[in-house]
Amino acid sequence: MSTRVNWYPLIIILLLAALVLAVSQLVVNRGQQARVEKMAANEQQRYQWRMVTTWPKGLPGLGLAPENFARIVSESSGGRLQIKVYGAGDLVPALGVFDAVSSGSVEMGHGAAYYWKGKIPAAPFFTAVPFGMNAQEMNGWMFYGGGLELYREAYAPFNLIPFPAGNTGVQMAGWFNKEINSIDDIQGTKMRIPGLAGEVWNRAGGEAVNIPGGELYTSLQTGVIDATEWVGPYNDLALGFYQVAKYYYYPGWHEPGPTLELLVNKQAFDALPKDLQTIVSTAARAVNQDMLDEYTARNNDALKTLVEEHGVVLKRLPNSVLAELRKHADAMYGEFAAKDPFFNKVYTQYRAFADKAASYHAISEQAYYQARE
Amino acid sequence: MSTRVNWYPLIIILLLAALVLAVSQLVVNRGQQARVEKMAANEQQRYQWRMVTTWPKGLPGLGLAPENFARIVSESSGGRLQIKVYGAGDLVPALGVFDAVSSGSVEMGHGAAYYWKGKIPAAPFFTAVPFGMNAQEMNGWMFYGGGLELYREAYAPFNLIPFPAGNTGVQMAGWFNKEINSIDDIQGTKMRIPGLAGEVWNRAGGEAVNIPGGELYTSLQTGVIDATEWVGPYNDLALGFYQVAKYYYYPGWHEPGPTLELLVNKQAFDALPKDLQTIVSTAARAVNQDMLDEYTARNNDALKTLVEEHGVVLKRLPNSVLAELRKHADAMYGEFAAKDPFFNKVYTQYRAFADKAASYHAISEQAYYQARE
Repeated sequence: MSTRVNWYPLIIILLLAALVLAVSQLVVNRGQQARVEKMAANEQQRYQWRMVTTWPKGLPGLGLAPENFARIVSESSGGRLQIKVYGAGDLVPALGVFDAVSSGSVEMGHGAAYYWKGKIPAAPFFTAVPFGMNAQEMNGWMFYGGGLELYREAYAPFNLIPFPAGNTGVQMAGWFNKEINSIDDIQGTKMRIPGLAGEVWNRAGGEAVNIPGGELYTSLQTGVIDATEWVGPYNDLALGFYQVAKYYYYPGWHEPGPTLELLVNKQAFDALPKDLQTIVSTAARAVNQDMLDEYTARNNDALKTLVEEHGVVLKRLPNSVLAELRKHADAMYGEFAAKDPFFNKVYTQYRAFADKAASYHAISEQAYYQARE
Repeated sequence: MSTRVNWYPLIIILLLAALVLAVSQLVVNRGQQARVEKMAANEQQRYQWRMVTTWPKGLPGLGLAPENFARIVSESSGGRLQIKVYGAGDLVPALGVFDAVSSGSVEMGHGAAYYWKGKIPAAPFFTAVPFGMNAQEMNGWMFYGGGLELYREAYAPFNLIPFPAGNTGVQMAGWFNKEINSIDDIQGTKMRIPGLAGEVWNRAGGEAVNIPGGELYTSLQTGVIDATEWVGPYNDLALGFYQVAKYYYYPGWHEPGPTLELLVNKQAFDALPKDLQTIVSTAARAVNQDMLDEYTARNNDALKTLVEEHGVVLKRLPNSVLAELRKHADAMYGEFAAKDPFFNKVYTQYRAFADKAASYHAISEQAYYQARE
């Protein structure tokens, strides 16, 4: 009888046990690795968004704000939120921006609230209204006076979150081919002046028309219109209006500091992690300031060029005309407020803030401008 | 002869092979996992910074900007950059902020450039100077007029990167216990008015003194001083000056829109990844706007309270007095420019921008304020 022990089965059992252990470790590790990778992926989840705008791509001032915004967001997020900017007409027409963002077909838009007054009669208060607040006052109202809350309330039914995102400062009253020395001179004056200001112009006896920016030069040249408003020296110089209009009137009673807006689709915004949400709102705030800074700097040089090189004649609207226009504006606000409860709510709060701001600015900003004269 | 084949060795060899494979996979996986974890850790490197300030902790307006800045940075970075804010005297005295950040003993500071005119004579131009630019103009100059480049150039030898980070808007001329009806009334008038404005006050025949904010109330009450400047209605109401001074004069010729500053130690900033650098600069921009918005909103209510509840008498400095003060200011700038080449460089560029901005604002912001009267 052989005394040799058969070790093979024991070795096989031990090897099997080791193999089971190794494989089970492998399974555990793979699971852990997948979790770490998923975590990292979540942290690093990338968003590719699209922004449609009401401006021609690259339009100085107004049209550069969306690009600046997208760049700040991309850099701040380390590339996690990338926004591709489309000019008016590239994806949707200029006035299709609101609906495109509302429906979620794109995540973002850049434009101005007063374009949407057909949907929200009170919307112009969130941009600029005749004889209303200037840029500094609008920002005070928006961020510390309850304005932003009303703005958000107005847009909520449309699935949109608005952010102030740019300001041109006080605009010019416009280019005229006739002198405005009294309220009589407004009678029958055909002026390209849209929105509530156009309504005021009509009430004062003028004839407000709406013509796209690209046709203004020819319309002035051929006498189709007597006058047009646009923005201010920086933008107006580029369009060459000084070649086809005699007088450049100030001040911009109709647009004393238009706030431009960033629109964000609510579901898209809610789906962002908290850090990206803050990056979006902070970038909007930065751009809101940046556009005004650019206009403040560029308007100076452009005005100098217009006056010194192109001989543009600057004229101030007479007080009597300004008073008459204001009277019609106030009457209009009263009528609209009586018809639309939300308009009334916004107007009441806007007016209360504006009156107090005007009282303080009379002895601060305004008095300082006078002191420096 | 047995025909039974001994399968055991073959089975053992196969099992050994499987075991080697499993263990090697395990080693590879552990390596991969370590790399992924290290990557995630790098992305998530956390920075704990300290910010010293020239303001008492929580001072309304001025003192809240640092806290707002820290909150925005923390939220935007998902907590990767946390900044602890220290009030004046907590870590270093108010006027030790510049040196503390310069030396790197803390990473950040918040204050105002004109505090450092002993080190950099041109520094006041980056805050506010008598008869200089207001908030809107300062922002235009800083971001689109070459101001920021000069500001950075001035601070570079001190290992500091400055960012505009707040603005109070036009301040009030101050609280007076005597009427200022002509330049003669300035003679011998003891006023707490620091910096270049104090120099102008002295040149006009007044007596400028520097007293810490906490002692102003008593100094006015006991007649140690005849007058003091502070900030504007929002801050001044809180200090109760209306109880110990007869007249509240405007406009703030001496501080027409002070820019507050964020100071960052250069090595600390350079060590941040690019995304956190953009988050810091964007948050500074947002806070620069936000403080002005808060003052714009809060000054209105405070002014109303001062006038309607506390019977404060508002008075405007006469034009003759403003003209005289301005004459002395211009002479002073000329003298300082002749002595210090960098002062001359900054003054020349500042003045050129300010003159153009004043021309445009005369027909825009200023003309609009007038139109609205």
